[in-house]
Amino acid sequence: MRELRVDLGERSYPIRIGEGLLGQAGQELLEAGLSVKSPLLVVSDDSVAPLYLEPLLEQLRSAGFRAASCVVPAGESSKSLARFEEIMTRALEEGLDRKSAIVALGGGVVGDLAGYAAASYMRGIRFVQMPTTILAHDSSVGGKVAVNHPMAKNIIGAFHQPALVLYDLDTLKTLPRREVSAGLAEVVKHGLIRDAAFVDWCVRHADRLLSLDPEALGYALFKGCEVKAAVVSADETEQDLRAILNLGHTIGHALEAVAGYGELLHGEAISIGMIGSALLGVQLGAPQEVYLRTREALGKAGLPVSLPEHFDTDRIMEAMMHDKKFGEGKMVFVVPTAIGEVEIRSDIREQWVRDIVERLKREASWP
Amino acid sequence: MRELRVDLGERSYPIRIGEGLLGQAGQELLEAGLSVKSPLLVVSDDSVAPLYLEPLLEQLRSAGFRAASCVVPAGESSKSLARFEEIMTRALEEGLDRKSAIVALGGGVVGDLAGYAAASYMRGIRFVQMPTTILAHDSSVGGKVAVNHPMAKNIIGAFHQPALVLYDLDTLKTLPRREVSAGLAEVVKHGLIRDAAFVDWCVRHADRLLSLDPEALGYALFKGCEVKAAVVSADETEQDLRAILNLGHTIGHALEAVAGYGELLHGEAISIGMIGSALLGVQLGAPQEVYLRTREALGKAGLPVSLPEHFDTDRIMEAMMHDKKFGEGKMVFVVPTAIGEVEIRSDIREQWVRDIVERLKREASWP
Repeated sequence: MRELRVDLGERSYPIRIGEGLLGQAGQELLEAGLSVKSPLLVVSDDSVAPLYLEPLLEQLRSAGFRAASCVVPAGESSKSLARFEEIMTRALEEGLDRKSAIVALGGGVVGDLAGYAAASYMRGIRFVQMPTTILAHDSSVGGKVAVNHPMAKNIIGAFHQPALVLYDLDTLKTLPRREVSAGLAEVVKHGLIRDAAFVDWCVRHADRLLSLDPEALGYALFKGCEVKAAVVSADETEQDLRAILNLGHTIGHALEAVAGYGELLHGEAISIGMIGSALLGVQLGAPQEVYLRTREALGKAGLPVSLPEHFDTDRIMEAMMHDKKFGEGKMVFVVPTAIGEVEIRSDIREQWVRDIVERLKREASWP
Repeated sequence: MRELRVDLGERSYPIRIGEGLLGQAGQELLEAGLSVKSPLLVVSDDSVAPLYLEPLLEQLRSAGFRAASCVVPAGESSKSLARFEEIMTRALEEGLDRKSAIVALGGGVVGDLAGYAAASYMRGIRFVQMPTTILAHDSSVGGKVAVNHPMAKNIIGAFHQPALVLYDLDTLKTLPRREVSAGLAEVVKHGLIRDAAFVDWCVRHADRLLSLDPEALGYALFKGCEVKAAVVSADETEQDLRAILNLGHTIGHALEAVAGYGELLHGEAISIGMIGSALLGVQLGAPQEVYLRTREALGKAGLPVSLPEHFDTDRIMEAMMHDKKFGEGKMVFVVPTAIGEVEIRSDIREQWVRDIVERLKREASWP
């Protein structure tokens, strides 16, 4: 088992990564300081719950906890105020008190929803994350929790750090191949912004990662969390530095907004976005190698590195402008200067971005 | 004008109390570091808005701000997730960004609702309080913001400190007499828990307070905020000390839960609750003077000091037990040991409380 500590003063917490962790969850919660006197609420979704919910509840109960559950439909639409209110109701029905915890068993959607519920119930109770996707390694570090508003994603939320993250690698075995790759997008991203050696490692071990080799996967998740934890520790509430985590997200978010439902997973969109950022970096003076290596690392992880022809450039630009409105009027880009190094630029011309979106369509075809 | 600084490290903020402050609100916001580049949203209710909203918006605009508004119905029922979502929608429509502020113009309900909106929008933007009731002096210090759930009050919320509190005494002139008294309940409470000399002052100057003499009222609000700020600074997230602010609230909340709609204002309920706590204090060994002085101070402020006969003791006890469920199973009382001194007791027997509720009905009649 690997353990990483996210260093945030009195809000510091451990991330434990390994096999079989759900089978010892009760003990882990007790060690994290939770009391069996206060009930727990496990939030999950209807994809994950049939696989892991009952065994987890059994485990927690055998450790002496009262544990109830709340299962929401799988998918982004559950990040809503309506589901949030449902969790509040369950928490009240089950008598959760100020020393209780809400446990998120699932991917990023469940983590964000349950985390915002934990942040808000009684003005904040403890929160435990048990991520069941690779992508969730990203959201499990940093305490950004939120639900969506019909007009904007992640607009209603909080910064609320978990008390503990338990990453059971066994729960990743049921992930579809496409979601494995999409999850690896954020793993590779963490290398691209801060750790060139880890990018090399990802390229060399891409096959092991794609086949979910536990040793390789455990290491990759550890490294991904490590980079993110270092950035978050230095800038908990995203005043400046933390923005580097948005590599690939300016274009990526716009692609997600424009894509048809289910056409692009988040990881796929930001993979294309990171290729765009690399092109921008080269245009601004970074060596060509930055673009080539970015493309290789993402491609080897089974991710798209070009934009399907049918995406409309005008609509993508509009979506970016809409995002901009909420960023104090500036279009902000995270741009690589080398592999493992990025800078934040707010002086990017609209025409450059438009050219890059067009260029992305001319890259080698969709994998 | 009086100014008080609530000392919370990097979350410290000033409370300004005086006449004519709304007329210089724009300047005050600029001095607090807000930028005219980011739009403001003023939240108010339909009692307060007709009196002060347009002049405030005019004032803010004349200082260069873009300022929109969102008006909710007056009353506790607006502390709902539905109204919260409405504010989120307005904030998005108006393009509020991370450097924007939500301004609460109104009493405690507006402050709690708008404050939770500010705590949650984009995971937290700035919040400015412009209280228009005496009671709101209490909620304007400490950053406790929340909405209600149909099953429990204030259960969905956050700790979110304002950037600035502007207390314009002119806006209090339209308060009905009953609400003036109810607001003074929390003012007197702050004396009872920490400042015997201020209790004396309240008794001597009760008439000036009831007639809304600006000098007396400004001083009383300043002192009330000062006590609360000292307690909150020492214990921002209510781990222990801050619980002393709940003097009178264990019984008071139960009375509110049992009372018919509109029968008891919050301040009236906690006035009776503080009489109950004083009786409990005397029973536990405090001098009789504690009870007599508490009764005098609250009575002079025009507050009820006894319980109307028709209140059912069993229902009051049930309501207290329900509250207890959320306090880790213990019934917690704040009990005075002297005027200006209290202790927190969790060893209070149910029968004692029952006897005191009965005794409260035999106190001198409802004023």
